Amino acid sequence: MRSHTSLQVRLPVLIFVMEIVMLVLYSFFVTYDDNGNAKLQNNQTDPMENSLYRDYPYFADVQVMIFVGFGCLLAFCRFYGFSGMVFNFLTAAFSIQWAILFACAVVLISYGAVLGKTSPVQLVVMAALEIPVFAVTEWAVLKYIRINDAGGTILIHLFACYFGLGVTFVLYRPCLNSGHPKETTSYHSDILSVMGTLFLWVFWPSFNSALTFKGDDQHRAVLHTFIGLSSSTITAFALSAMFNKRGKLTMADIQNVTLAGGVTVGASVDMMISPAAAFALGIMGCTACFFGYKYLTPFMAKRLRIQDQCGIHNLHGLTGIISSTAGICAILLATEETYGPSLYQIFSHRAPPEGDPKLLELQQLIPGLKPGLGRTAKEQALFQLAAVFATIAASTVGGLLTGLMMNLKFMASPSDEDCFDDELFFDLELSDTACHGIISAVSFYSE
Amino acid sequence: MRSHTSLQVRLPVLIFVMEIVMLVLYSFFVTYDDNGNAKLQNNQTDPMENSLYRDYPYFADVQVMIFVGFGCLLAFCRFYGFSGMVFNFLTAAFSIQWAILFACAVVLISYGAVLGKTSPVQLVVMAALEIPVFAVTEWAVLKYIRINDAGGTILIHLFACYFGLGVTFVLYRPCLNSGHPKETTSYHSDILSVMGTLFLWVFWPSFNSALTFKGDDQHRAVLHTFIGLSSSTITAFALSAMFNKRGKLTMADIQNVTLAGGVTVGASVDMMISPAAAFALGIMGCTACFFGYKYLTPFMAKRLRIQDQCGIHNLHGLTGIISSTAGICAILLATEETYGPSLYQIFSHRAPPEGDPKLLELQQLIPGLKPGLGRTAKEQALFQLAAVFATIAASTVGGLLTGLMMNLKFMASPSDEDCFDDELFFDLELSDTACHGIISAVSFYSE
Amino acid sequence: MRSHTSLQVRLPVLIFVMEIVMLVLYSFFVTYDDNGNAKLQNNQTDPMENSLYRDYPYFADVQVMIFVGFGCLLAFCRFYGFSGMVFNFLTAAFSIQWAILFACAVVLISYGAVLGKTSPVQLVVMAALEIPVFAVTEWAVLKYIRINDAGGTILIHLFACYFGLGVTFVLYRPCLNSGHPKETTSYHSDILSVMGTLFLWVFWPSFNSALTFKGDDQHRAVLHTFIGLSSSTITAFALSAMFNKRGKLTMADIQNVTLAGGVTVGASVDMMISPAAAFALGIMGCTACFFGYKYLTPFMAKRLRIQDQCGIHNLHGLTGIISSTAGICAILLATEETYGPSLYQIFSHRAPPEGDPKLLELQQLIPGLKPGLGRTAKEQALFQLAAVFATIAASTVGGLLTGLMMNLKFMASPSDEDCFDDELFFDLELSDTACHGIISAVSFYSE
Repeated sequence: MRSHTSLQVRLPVLIFVMEIVMLVLYSFFVTYDDNGNAKLQNNQTDPMENSLYRDYPYFADVQVMIFVGFGCLLAFCRFYGFSGMVFNFLTAAFSIQWAILFACAVVLISYGAVLGKTSPVQLVVMAALEIPVFAVTEWAVLKYIRINDAGGTILIHLFACYFGLGVTFVLYRPCLNSGHPKETTSYHSDILSVMGTLFLWVFWPSFNSALTFKGDDQHRAVLHTFIGLSSSTITAFALSAMFNKRGKLTMADIQNVTLAGGVTVGASVDMMISPAAAFALGIMGCTACFFGYKYLTPFMAKRLRIQDQCGIHNLHGLTGIISSTAGICAILLATEETYGPSLYQIFSHRAPPEGDPKLLELQQLIPGLKPGLGRTAKEQALFQLAAVFATIAASTVGGLLTGLMMNLKFMASPSDEDCFDDELFFDLELSDTACHGIISAVSFYSE
Repeated sequence: MRSHTSLQVRLPVLIFVMEIVMLVLYSFFVTYDDNGNAKLQNNQTDPMENSLYRDYPYFADVQVMIFVGFGCLLAFCRFYGFSGMVFNFLTAAFSIQWAILFACAVVLISYGAVLGKTSPVQLVVMAALEIPVFAVTEWAVLKYIRINDAGGTILIHLFACYFGLGVTFVLYRPCLNSGHPKETTSYHSDILSVMGTLFLWVFWPSFNSALTFKGDDQHRAVLHTFIGLSSSTITAFALSAMFNKRGKLTMADIQNVTLAGGVTVGASVDMMISPAAAFALGIMGCTACFFGYKYLTPFMAKRLRIQDQCGIHNLHGLTGIISSTAGICAILLATEETYGPSLYQIFSHRAPPEGDPKLLELQQLIPGLKPGLGRTAKEQALFQLAAVFATIAASTVGGLLTGLMMNLKFMASPSDEDCFDDELFFDLELSDTACHGIISAVSFYSE
Repeated sequence: MRSHTSLQVRLPVLIFVMEIVMLVLYSFFVTYDDNGNAKLQNNQTDPMENSLYRDYPYFADVQVMIFVGFGCLLAFCRFYGFSGMVFNFLTAAFSIQWAILFACAVVLISYGAVLGKTSPVQLVVMAALEIPVFAVTEWAVLKYIRINDAGGTILIHLFACYFGLGVTFVLYRPCLNSGHPKETTSYHSDILSVMGTLFLWVFWPSFNSALTFKGDDQHRAVLHTFIGLSSSTITAFALSAMFNKRGKLTMADIQNVTLAGGVTVGASVDMMISPAAAFALGIMGCTACFFGYKYLTPFMAKRLRIQDQCGIHNLHGLTGIISSTAGICAILLATEETYGPSLYQIFSHRAPPEGDPKLLELQQLIPGLKPGLGRTAKEQALFQLAAVFATIAASTVGGLLTGLMMNLKFMASPSDEDCFDDELFFDLELSDTACHGIISAVSFYSE
């Protein structure tokens, strides 16, 4: 048994310590909000007005993306299917305890940068550190910079991407630059992975629309995601065939590049950008993603010591940057002529501040409109830009520091030759010779 | 490299031309409807009344059917799993851009007739042509004949079936009649395919109920589909064992015949047919479908030159005919005694026309009841019959013409010996030796 | 052909007889309830108030669990994937006809006790008998003992577990105690099975919350399930590594033990137990489940003649007992101080009886509060305990008797050496050499 990668002590100790801490924190700090508190229900309460009914459908869809979608997608490696799918499971479950659902997506995206090179101990540590960094960054950006980011382009995709790149930079393994014999797919792993793609595709409209205002905003968000995904999908097929020497399709493109549109519409997903613009964004994001996989990722590995295992920089970084740019343009181009008074609801920081007579006028037209900061379009656009830089900076630094933590001893980090191999962390002898119940129990455990 | 099936130029050119056309069309013609237009929201608007909340759950379920359900189901062939699942993905994404969701289902059903014998170029052409034919047929039937077809039996299943048969008639390959060495399943492809069946089964009630009136109509539609599917499922098991020489079950039956009930309840799915009738319809449709696979499909291949690869005529044609007949009977038997005044809501063309005093009476009982054509039950039944014939005619002709287009040169059509083989269109060398990120990038793309 | 396991006559006969009986029963007894009856819709009816819209989302999620989740999960055995997934399909479809959805879950849980050792004929018989026993037990407990069991801990999990153990006790096969050569997993079957786990995980909040009151109760149910599942998941990883000689993870643990939290929160899932308590319950249930697999299941097989194939006693029995205990504690600790007047809504049997002036007071605060039995907390706790014993007793006896029925001749029961083998009941020759449509039709059926 390779003792430096044995999980027998490290993983349980880490998990139990985390769980005790979590349990104590939950006991002191986690209570029911108003929607979950029985005491606050009274004779005015309409049960069907509970926030559950607005949010649960979207929540459940995102759960499918996270556990099944990502799980299958990350199972593409021939000898690393268990690890891909199951470490995704572990990391997701831990992240979910530690933070809200979308923070979980952040950790799983970052995992893509280091897939195959880490132990579950390292992954739990990564989740433990990434989530507070994410939460603080998100809080700071939303509180001090104040931006529009309904699809989570900046706060989720860009954050996750650059955090992951920071981690993988520290965990650089020079010997892996010429590849690894087990870094391969099989027919079945490729099919499983593309099933993951399909799940992500189907539920992405829920992801992008989960945080918008209800009503027409959410409706547009679903529509734009749908359009953006379909245009990036078919463009991916075209580019894949076009740039393949044998004129064939490459499964890696179908698994990843097809999804680019979902990210690229994100920053403007609830805005009145027009369906054609969503279509165009899908094409643009897909193209950037495709050429990123082809040229940028190898460049980053060879020249910048950034081994981006799943190419997350293509699917979340490049697309995120395009998306943020599109969002900024949409903000600059937004007028009352196109939006009506809803302009001040979607771009809430542009609403007049408290006390401004224009606010009262608007509140006649949009009941419940909250006071804003009275920003102009240009000001809001500048703040969006500031948020992009701030997020990339915070996530990169956070990733580098987390990578250093993950690089400490006793993290069960695999040696170079043991990467991409389930056999390191999963008892495959047990799988092949026995299974549940009696036999595994009687013959094996009774030794 | 087989140049006549290389996708390197054909597929990108086709797709990019389509996308430019689509983008231009979107720019000029595709706008937000009232539910997506921010400008139309005012102080009377209740965001939760947005159509999104009524439709999105059903929409999302149908998406799962289309991408995951069909995707897995069509991955049954041992050496054609990539093609089945991924061409389904491409065709679905393209169709979705080109038309609404249900048109997409139409194309994917037709694909089942020609699975294994076509290139993705041919499939995109098929989608490009089938959807306008579908749209025009649907428009003409709904506008001029005016029928009840909540479950899409006539307009979706019958259309898709006969269109697909038209295509496959033109694409007849005499050498494939005695089979093909690669036209086989494997243990894993069979499991994947039956997973597709399970997804389709679970979400079929959403499909059948998505277009009904809300309320009790939709409730009945869910119920009937559920009952019809469960009776066709267990009947399928019985027939499969009964007619197998070794007294065993055949996976092909479990994958296909179990679903017959979903189609067979379709034309009467929102009517007061009684749960027992839905049960009986499931049994009937399943039986027809089973014997269709056994006798009719080989007959059609040998004698009529119609090679129905997945037996879509059994699952959509025969069942669609039984369903339409049941729908006609239900229409003939519908009385105010069973339905109450709702009769004129469900059978909307039977409602009294504008100006008729009976209409006003009924509108007291059913607020918002739209004026109809004052048809009798017999008249409506005759129109249903007319719609069946018209749809079959239009789809057959459309399919034949589309087949001729697909048969043109430069469509990358596989030779007979290259059918049922992923290797023709997918870079399997790339899959087997390298995967994402660094190695595929560094070692392969840097050649 | 092994005639004693041929399904050629037995299965069709059984199914057709069942279906005729079912059809007759449906014709006479199954009608539309108010929500499905067109006649009852009038000008006061709001279509969106139909119960469909409250229930269908949860219903659909549970369907995914039952068909896809269980289907994949039970496909873990290397040579028994078809049987696991497809017999799950058959049994589910039959159960669904025969009873409501949750009764279906009961049968599928019990199936886990005998997986690999039964024929589909025996499974249909088991479903045919288990469902009435379940229905009667549920009716009797709810009517005479009157308990809180929103998550179905007692009425679903405990029932299913002990019924299954009763069946497997009768079907004891001494030769299988030292294992079976085909009782093994493969890489692919393990991945498929853990996909099933992921589906069950994702939708378990829907399962646990489907039967609660709407509003804050359902909100808490979703929350507690989510928390309980995440804590049992990561604890499962920890224990799996800790107790493995090589310090590695065991897939069987990831597939089963991770889910323990979902059951363990069940009996108190809608109560104000605090998030920390849900967290702790997840850890407790997971720990009991893990050690159950390790020690209790082999003990039960060797000493008590109970061969629990999938270890359902660990995932549904032990956890169910802990859950029921927690529920009882929660009931004893419930005060108006924590719940407000909602106390009498959740613990409906504690509400004052008809005529009691306190009832009128409470009905001011909780409109529509139903009269109860005026029970004290202690009384309700005692009744819960009584329900646990009654359910375990009824299900055990029911299981034993059902096992005796299943043990009769002509049930196509596999011999010991034919267990765990798809080849017994599935035509694998047909799978390997031909598939749908033409070839299977032309070359094979035309013999």
